Amino acid sequence: MGRVTLDGLLNPSSVAILGATDETRRVGGRVMRYMHEAGFKGPIYPINPKRETVQGKRAYPSISDIPGTADLAILSIPARFVKQSIYDCAAKGVKAVVVFSSGFAEMGDEGRAMQEELGAAALDAGVRLLGPNCLGAASVNSGVIASFSSNFLDALPEPGSVGIVSQSGAFGAHLYSLARARGIGLSHWVTTGNEVDITIAECLDFLVDRDEVNTLVVYAEGINDAEGLRRALAKARGARKPVIFLKVGRTEAGAEAAKSHTASLAVSDAVVDAMLKQYGVYRADTTDEMMDVAYACQMGVFPEGRKLGILTISGGVGVQMADSAIKHGLEVPELPDAAQKKIAEMLPFAAVRNPVDITATAMEDPSFVPITHEIILNETDCDAVASFLTPVSGSHEVADTLLPYFARVHEATPNKAISLNIIMPEDVARRYEAERHTVFDTPDRAVASIAALCKIRESFDRGEGAAPLAAPSDALSVPEMAVSEVEAKRVLASNGIGVVREALVTDADSAVSNAAEMPGAVVMKIASPDIQHKTEIGGVLVGVEGDDAVRNGFDTLIARAKEHAPDASIDGVVVCEMVSGGVETVIGVNSDPTFGPVVMFGLGGIFVEVLKDVTFRLAPFGVDEAARMIREIKSFDVLTGARGGPAVDLDDLAETLSRVSVFAAENADTLDSLDINPYLSLPKGGCALDALIVPKG
Amino acid sequence: MGRVTLDGLLNPSSVAILGATDETRRVGGRVMRYMHEAGFKGPIYPINPKRETVQGKRAYPSISDIPGTADLAILSIPARFVKQSIYDCAAKGVKAVVVFSSGFAEMGDEGRAMQEELGAAALDAGVRLLGPNCLGAASVNSGVIASFSSNFLDALPEPGSVGIVSQSGAFGAHLYSLARARGIGLSHWVTTGNEVDITIAECLDFLVDRDEVNTLVVYAEGINDAEGLRRALAKARGARKPVIFLKVGRTEAGAEAAKSHTASLAVSDAVVDAMLKQYGVYRADTTDEMMDVAYACQMGVFPEGRKLGILTISGGVGVQMADSAIKHGLEVPELPDAAQKKIAEMLPFAAVRNPVDITATAMEDPSFVPITHEIILNETDCDAVASFLTPVSGSHEVADTLLPYFARVHEATPNKAISLNIIMPEDVARRYEAERHTVFDTPDRAVASIAALCKIRESFDRGEGAAPLAAPSDALSVPEMAVSEVEAKRVLASNGIGVVREALVTDADSAVSNAAEMPGAVVMKIASPDIQHKTEIGGVLVGVEGDDAVRNGFDTLIARAKEHAPDASIDGVVVCEMVSGGVETVIGVNSDPTFGPVVMFGLGGIFVEVLKDVTFRLAPFGVDEAARMIREIKSFDVLTGARGGPAVDLDDLAETLSRVSVFAAENADTLDSLDINPYLSLPKGGCALDALIVPKG
Repeated sequence: MGRVTLDGLLNPSSVAILGATDETRRVGGRVMRYMHEAGFKGPIYPINPKRETVQGKRAYPSISDIPGTADLAILSIPARFVKQSIYDCAAKGVKAVVVFSSGFAEMGDEGRAMQEELGAAALDAGVRLLGPNCLGAASVNSGVIASFSSNFLDALPEPGSVGIVSQSGAFGAHLYSLARARGIGLSHWVTTGNEVDITIAECLDFLVDRDEVNTLVVYAEGINDAEGLRRALAKARGARKPVIFLKVGRTEAGAEAAKSHTASLAVSDAVVDAMLKQYGVYRADTTDEMMDVAYACQMGVFPEGRKLGILTISGGVGVQMADSAIKHGLEVPELPDAAQKKIAEMLPFAAVRNPVDITATAMEDPSFVPITHEIILNETDCDAVASFLTPVSGSHEVADTLLPYFARVHEATPNKAISLNIIMPEDVARRYEAERHTVFDTPDRAVASIAALCKIRESFDRGEGAAPLAAPSDALSVPEMAVSEVEAKRVLASNGIGVVREALVTDADSAVSNAAEMPGAVVMKIASPDIQHKTEIGGVLVGVEGDDAVRNGFDTLIARAKEHAPDASIDGVVVCEMVSGGVETVIGVNSDPTFGPVVMFGLGGIFVEVLKDVTFRLAPFGVDEAARMIREIKSFDVLTGARGGPAVDLDDLAETLSRVSVFAAENADTLDSLDINPYLSLPKGGCALDALIVPKG
Repeated sequence: MGRVTLDGLLNPSSVAILGATDETRRVGGRVMRYMHEAGFKGPIYPINPKRETVQGKRAYPSISDIPGTADLAILSIPARFVKQSIYDCAAKGVKAVVVFSSGFAEMGDEGRAMQEELGAAALDAGVRLLGPNCLGAASVNSGVIASFSSNFLDALPEPGSVGIVSQSGAFGAHLYSLARARGIGLSHWVTTGNEVDITIAECLDFLVDRDEVNTLVVYAEGINDAEGLRRALAKARGARKPVIFLKVGRTEAGAEAAKSHTASLAVSDAVVDAMLKQYGVYRADTTDEMMDVAYACQMGVFPEGRKLGILTISGGVGVQMADSAIKHGLEVPELPDAAQKKIAEMLPFAAVRNPVDITATAMEDPSFVPITHEIILNETDCDAVASFLTPVSGSHEVADTLLPYFARVHEATPNKAISLNIIMPEDVARRYEAERHTVFDTPDRAVASIAALCKIRESFDRGEGAAPLAAPSDALSVPEMAVSEVEAKRVLASNGIGVVREALVTDADSAVSNAAEMPGAVVMKIASPDIQHKTEIGGVLVGVEGDDAVRNGFDTLIARAKEHAPDASIDGVVVCEMVSGGVETVIGVNSDPTFGPVVMFGLGGIFVEVLKDVTFRLAPFGVDEAARMIREIKSFDVLTGARGGPAVDLDDLAETLSRVSVFAAENADTLDSLDINPYLSLPKGGCALDALIVPKG
């Protein structure tokens, strides 16, 4: 980046407010009030040429008149004055400005031009700019509320460890309200608006480095800095700080709507999804899911495995929670005999396998609840516990008995997550939360949150993963012009990718001699840059065996080509080994304008065509990422020998995908698309039967 | 049923409380207090042999001592006294008893025997029994709270139109809390516990008939009265009262857990799911979904179509809502030009296609919000509107401007649903809700609730649907013993189901003459009850053409059978027409112990075997239900000619499924299973190529 950091924005020593007024109904009045109330320690300079004082503080006619400097300047001024103000601020040593004004790129071309001027001015003046068309930012520990959002009228942020970064101001404000209602404390809250300078990516990058932040919530409309975002996400994973990401535009209709929402660049959702998977980001589908997962993550307790213990006072709810656990990919193991026996001795009528149903009757003696919790947490290999104890357990008395037990559990096994489904008054809930236990009001969410924590921990543990396989030293590059299928496979082979054994021949004798070197029958295909659909003209012969048949085949193909496409230039005939068995897969590469080359994988035939059962990753990636990719398709079982078919060589397939990704990445500037259809995955190894490389240009 | 109705339980004129005490910490004290506080109009008789008065009312030593009668007796007494009390109550004319006591079927075999005695006693004495092991019931308008749930300590039910029926007491209480927190008013709240007499089904049946009930929420662990449930659900659909159903045990692990929860019978989830679909029941996956949908349904506003207008103050949130709409099966149509123009004239910078983004700036003049709402609601063909107006619109002032507009809309088009995503204080929300608009705190739920309303309305409009096709008058029944494939197809053919043209022959001449009558080549198969896997012994010949080939074929098959299975009894050889083209489907019937015959449908090969892409319905059903069934499979596109295959005769397929369902229903007592694999669906018509009928016994 090379530009000054966001310290001026999120950790300033002094703040100037341009357009500060007394009236807190107005933007400049509101910011002034918030900065005042939030307990900012440094000087605050109201700028207002018409007043001596604003809200009790001495006002200055212009930024040039303040004594000393201001790290941060908040511009509550009309759009047309913004550009000049940026220069004025820079002259006084201001490091960052917040621009609330709308009327820029979101308003069409004229606005976009104005916005570009702002961006250029900020760059020129060496000032960082948040906005325009944003709701500003808050940095809770620093006592900075550089926003006019009416949310802060009701209540200032509760300090906490969650950082919210939202491109949308309105939705950022909405998330603020939801967090407050849920008792989720915030470290930072930033809305980036039109992102002429500061992007979501950079905010994320900055926040990951703050010790007080342990969880990041991101709401993105578009992706304006793909490289920066990838860097920030990699850094967050390295720091084991979960990123919960809601990216709008999942559906075609959504993407269509996004296009008319001009302030952001549309990007293929499949590619965004691939990127988020690759970086171990938790992609939330809904607002509720995002807030639930953030709520759980901030506790900082990430279970070491997927084994869930379920404790309930209702058998039916136990079943419901087991359903939910399985749906979310958790396991519900039968408890060890000793633990079952111990519970059964105390509570002869309890169900003890897991779910453990201590029955409502057990609630008559409140000591059963902590004891059974302790048994499941300490005497089984469950990684987490979800408990349905409502409706009678939401009291301080129950908390008094439970919390000391839970504390002992956390001391011994700090990563065991405890998720309670109890409807309780807020002050009781806060006691559990202070000890890093989660409280939900439905069993489904109590379980789902644990599943989210498990997935996040797994992505942390996985880390960056294996490096992409190095390309062979003699790897060929993407050809400058379109090339034949044979040539395409030659390029792939030089990049370490298995291809079918084949030869391009121009006379019948060579056809015969080449076929003779291949085991069994061969496939013969006409080779011509001008004949796209070979099968339609009878240009493919399958199962050709014996010298005479090969010789006849050569002649037949040439004759058919001449008959059906008299003007076609003919390269000859391809003779290739007839490989059978295995499973046909499809491997593709496309060049995404935002993220560069993207590798696709799926099974051939109906799986790709009818079921659209495909998966994507950004190039390049290593074999372990490729292995995950392969396991992600719904038809994965076909590769392991379901339906009595062959079990294929998954290691070869993963290696091939990684090699394709490396080829795509190394040739990112020149490769438009690559299509290997099919790549025949065999019980041992595999090979590309057909391939098409399309260069850019 | 033939037994007295539930009036005694849910609409009693007088109530006796056995075990009533002064201490409200005890069950009998709590019930007494609740009945008192709930404003029950009739006499309440506390029964307690040790006290003169209970909570200020004269107490009676036994039920026999009360003056007159009590319609309802609430038994807060130990389990061992319950049976005698039932007889005592009956002697005084009691119509219904509530039994809270646990220690019955949920505790094992001994308890189950005791429970059966209770059931027999109630039947014998002519008294209806709720429970045992339940939390009781509440009937809000009648002022009846026959429960000791501590929930009612905090607050008595708000009257409303939602009836909750829960098998689980603890979860019923939980739902009560959630409803209260959400401001959902209740008409009735019933927990059925072990269901020795009164079941969920009967409660549902009773509540559907109450005018004050417009929405039903059901939480079921098992299904104890399948016939009654089907009747009640059909009645609810006829009365256009939505039933929102959460049935636990969706996953195998859940079902496994359900088995060890002994109080209820496990039932295959696929069958429950089929039944709920068939009766147009809204099946909720999670507690949150159940409560959201109930909240929306009670408004009684069901959109007439799936077209959603989206109005937001943030472009990004508009995209998010469009995503959510598509995910939930709604449409987001582009608004008509006139409407777009009208909005654009007012708000030149708004996005106007749909989603309509009036931008946060528009909020500065609060009149834009109602006007744009009115345009979308009145001047487009949108069936519903979802609006994201938070965070600045949760005030009484905004409600003051919006509500009169909304009222006009509802007057003109009473089925247009308005769903607001605004975070607002409860008292403001209640104002919108009073006018039957829904208020959600996240955009996803605002949209999802509209989708639920649409689906429910569609199921109402569909109603019972077409009657199952009548079986032909000469339809054959299920044979008493296992029969050959040929015989099975003969049975199917007599039931109006298309089968392949074929003949069983016992000599080569007949083989030749039959083959000669079939167009083109034939398939020949050995026919023997002792040879299950014909292909393995070379017992199937495909594409046999010409007299000589058929004659040879006959001899070959007989020879192979004799060679490979010398002891097999051989019926002869089946000569059948070789039908090609079309799509192979699989049609099956299984007999479910709870719901009787269930029809399965899917596509052949990997679709059934690998992808488990199948769907079910209870037999019998008509062609429209069959048509929905066909469209439900994920691979439906294969039937319409995707992947360049043939488009098949969907009408024939639907008719076939309906006829299979009728055959299954008519033979429910004798049919164990039927397997038509494949049924070849053709561009015109279709035919069973192979079939297996397994009789019961």
